[in-house]
Amino acid sequence: MRKSFFLAVLVIVSLTVLPTSRHVEGARGVVVEERAARAVHATPPAPAWDDAARLAELAARRAKVGEYVGAKSLLLMFSAEPRVYTGDVDYEYRQENNFFYLTHLNQKGATLVLLPGAARTREILFLPRRSPRAEVWTGHMYSAEEAYRLSGVGEIWDAAEFESFVRALRARRLFRPKDASILMSVSSSPQAGAVATNDQTQGANARAGLTPQALLDDPLLSAMAQDDASLFLLLPGEGESREFRQEQEFASQWAKSDRGLTIRNAFPVFTRLRQVKSPAELALIQHAVDITTEAVERAVSLAPESRYEYEVGAEVAHTFLLRGAENAGSFPIVAAGANTTTLHYTRGEGQARTGDLLLLDVGAEYGHFCADISRTFPVSGHFSPEQATIYTAVLAAQDAGIKAARPGATIGEVHNAATESLRDSLLRLGLITERNTAQYFLWFMHGTSHWLGMNVHDVGLYERKLEPGMVLTVEPGIYVRADALDNLPKTPENAKLVAAVRPAFEKYKNIGVRIEDDVVITSDGNRVMSAALPRTIPEVESLMARLTR
Amino acid sequence: MRKSFFLAVLVIVSLTVLPTSRHVEGARGVVVEERAARAVHATPPAPAWDDAARLAELAARRAKVGEYVGAKSLLLMFSAEPRVYTGDVDYEYRQENNFFYLTHLNQKGATLVLLPGAARTREILFLPRRSPRAEVWTGHMYSAEEAYRLSGVGEIWDAAEFESFVRALRARRLFRPKDASILMSVSSSPQAGAVATNDQTQGANARAGLTPQALLDDPLLSAMAQDDASLFLLLPGEGESREFRQEQEFASQWAKSDRGLTIRNAFPVFTRLRQVKSPAELALIQHAVDITTEAVERAVSLAPESRYEYEVGAEVAHTFLLRGAENAGSFPIVAAGANTTTLHYTRGEGQARTGDLLLLDVGAEYGHFCADISRTFPVSGHFSPEQATIYTAVLAAQDAGIKAARPGATIGEVHNAATESLRDSLLRLGLITERNTAQYFLWFMHGTSHWLGMNVHDVGLYERKLEPGMVLTVEPGIYVRADALDNLPKTPENAKLVAAVRPAFEKYKNIGVRIEDDVVITSDGNRVMSAALPRTIPEVESLMARLTR
Repeated sequence: MRKSFFLAVLVIVSLTVLPTSRHVEGARGVVVEERAARAVHATPPAPAWDDAARLAELAARRAKVGEYVGAKSLLLMFSAEPRVYTGDVDYEYRQENNFFYLTHLNQKGATLVLLPGAARTREILFLPRRSPRAEVWTGHMYSAEEAYRLSGVGEIWDAAEFESFVRALRARRLFRPKDASILMSVSSSPQAGAVATNDQTQGANARAGLTPQALLDDPLLSAMAQDDASLFLLLPGEGESREFRQEQEFASQWAKSDRGLTIRNAFPVFTRLRQVKSPAELALIQHAVDITTEAVERAVSLAPESRYEYEVGAEVAHTFLLRGAENAGSFPIVAAGANTTTLHYTRGEGQARTGDLLLLDVGAEYGHFCADISRTFPVSGHFSPEQATIYTAVLAAQDAGIKAARPGATIGEVHNAATESLRDSLLRLGLITERNTAQYFLWFMHGTSHWLGMNVHDVGLYERKLEPGMVLTVEPGIYVRADALDNLPKTPENAKLVAAVRPAFEKYKNIGVRIEDDVVITSDGNRVMSAALPRTIPEVESLMARLTR
Repeated sequence: MRKSFFLAVLVIVSLTVLPTSRHVEGARGVVVEERAARAVHATPPAPAWDDAARLAELAARRAKVGEYVGAKSLLLMFSAEPRVYTGDVDYEYRQENNFFYLTHLNQKGATLVLLPGAARTREILFLPRRSPRAEVWTGHMYSAEEAYRLSGVGEIWDAAEFESFVRALRARRLFRPKDASILMSVSSSPQAGAVATNDQTQGANARAGLTPQALLDDPLLSAMAQDDASLFLLLPGEGESREFRQEQEFASQWAKSDRGLTIRNAFPVFTRLRQVKSPAELALIQHAVDITTEAVERAVSLAPESRYEYEVGAEVAHTFLLRGAENAGSFPIVAAGANTTTLHYTRGEGQARTGDLLLLDVGAEYGHFCADISRTFPVSGHFSPEQATIYTAVLAAQDAGIKAARPGATIGEVHNAATESLRDSLLRLGLITERNTAQYFLWFMHGTSHWLGMNVHDVGLYERKLEPGMVLTVEPGIYVRADALDNLPKTPENAKLVAAVRPAFEKYKNIGVRIEDDVVITSDGNRVMSAALPRTIPEVESLMARLTR
């Protein structure tokens, strides 16, 4: 009794009254906006992650990576390069995920070096030195103290020394940075050691018995002498990656005069570690989900007013920015009418008309973690019978997929569960003639799930069994594209198929429905992180009534 | 009389009533938003640019570029590469400016070839062939017909043929694309020729006496045979450009086995042409300015409510998106209090408090053309005496700069006029002790003006005399950074300077003011395109009163 009362209060508190606008042509041509109160799920406060907990988690992540690469290895990780927009303007900077995963630093031009076999200094951060001249232009850069407090990496050297460090490595020499280039040097345990600024560094080093000559010590150098050492770099995927150009160039330069260190790929360890989310990571994803929930509700409240798709998208982006999300990379998919049948539609030039479906596929990003939610709404507030039929089929498939998302299953089994349900529905609706062939692919041509985390399509092994802390989307869809039958190869079999399904095709033509939720695996099954956003037909219609009243 | 009445009506019509919100903690913790009607300058409709006029302008641009590179040359231009955000997600695509300038096409993976010396086919567009499979995912790709109607380039070949084209060029051979790869082939004048689809191409070619063998005809091949031909590519600037990687790679590959074509840089001709804007281009810039005006007014109306900078910035971005602007690359500078003294401050984590100044430096982008406007507002609605003093000095400098922006002057003279005024003011205020040294640079450390166009910092020759159609910003500022005196080199002269200016420094510390307008040169002087946005102290205070009432 008390508990349900508490829940009811929570619901009330989490609703905020949202103004929405209608443009009305006034008597004298003056544009007037009228407002009505509408209730949306307001984003709760951002999760707190205190310094000690964050530093402990970052240290544990680095330790796990160190175990993986081993004592005879060195790992180099570069900050993301800024990406040029045009001329001297860059897109908004986003740190490389794995660099951020180990450092929590947004600084450009930095390099992290892990030396897991070193006796003392196992972590070195090369950091661009603060420059008053640069800060006049672009504002604050991290001081060594700040970088240490954020990352817990206690050995911080001027980034200008990195080239010399690499030269020394090539020459199999110990590297001694210039004294003035040691921006900070503290005990390797940030909790234990006191922060020493540059002026104090030499004394602190002397007291700790740590000489710069010992920084690269035995295990690595002796392995190099025996050509038994490895240099780990992030070199993901097959062929060339457009993301990791610095790493690829470094690898190709290094390979030209290989000196004892064999280039190896560090990506698999990050794939493995990042596939299971910690409680702190889950809290960030949940916050991103909550921001997205508010954004979808705000945006949908505009739908019944014959809005252009880009106007609905503008409200999504507005909500993201207003709630402190970082979304420079992802642009909302807002598709109305026939555009709902294009999977990654981002043009936004169509208009949402009464009778149309409006499909939103959007996700905020918060603290480098992503949400990814799709909902399909009837602009009028009510699904037509045909829309409801397709929607119901997709919902059933999603329910089946979510049900299959349990510890011990695989992401492929989630897809299969959803697909089995879809095959049944499509056959019943007359959109396919054979349940057990690839025919269903005509109307559902993507995977049901992807991993979710620091990438919206996150890293993760497909074959690995689901375990608590893994997060995936479950997002089946049906897309009755107007050109779907025309684009089939002209074979006798296809001619037969086309003739058989044409009546159903005409009935459902231009209807596209996708329903996507974010699901975290728990010990006894899963939890739908995006459950606050209505999903069933009655829930959706009631939300529309509330938001657009 | 009639005229001024008409103007008055225009002003009324262009005001829209804008709702703004205030968060109020309700009795039971429920967040309530209250609204008040506020009037902002609503963006007028986007400029119309009809097909015939656009095609004529594009053809004229290509003809001018052709004249510049000459008959013994070939110009290659690539679509911009997509820029990776993270993983498989790209930033929103933006076409390379010069490619867009000649084609109006937003398509990725396309290549434009100009052969100014060819008898017939002087323009070839290599276009990715439409793929139903790809369109299911990302939506519509240009058909050859659409690309022709947008660009006026009538010879369109499958982009898959480009490599063969380059191989033929290396071998000094005429290139004959496979028939199926000719997506379109029409008379070189789009106004005159009929559109021929692929099926009709062969017949049309035969009728016109145009054989594929003749596509690369004499002047270029014979010049190649004499090592007298040029291959023009966009290779801007000194050193490596992060923007033009494809061009740089092509040039370096080509240089390795140079076959009769010397690589030359096409950038100067675009710099020259784009420096003077056509009426159609000016209309796009004006529309970007109008969107920016609305965005600044909407955003400023939020200022008095102790908003975080990012919330104010969110309203700017929201307005841009709502008005159809494309702003994936530029993030608003919104700085409050001491942050106003950082030139390109984009962190947005500060709060705008009563008594602070709030500096916005923002610009919408519309149809690939940019605005760039700065205004500095008192959060309380009223400037303090110290703020007003600095503001007045900046305004006087801007007035002097704008006055100097006339045909026959240089952009350097605009800067000098503003700087002369600033030197006077800074000396009078006690912030410098010597008028004619570089001391003023302590408080005003950037140029007064930059060219404005397809880049926010547009291409243009510094030394070229101003002429009608050139667009530049005029944006002096004074930034009394709290660390400015500390960061001076410790010399006896500086010690004297610091002692002398310290009282004024303490008085104005943490005040940053920039006022920036967009100015187009006209035959008799100039026109301030951003004049709708209040600029003088009484105008600014009255705007604040109106918006925040």
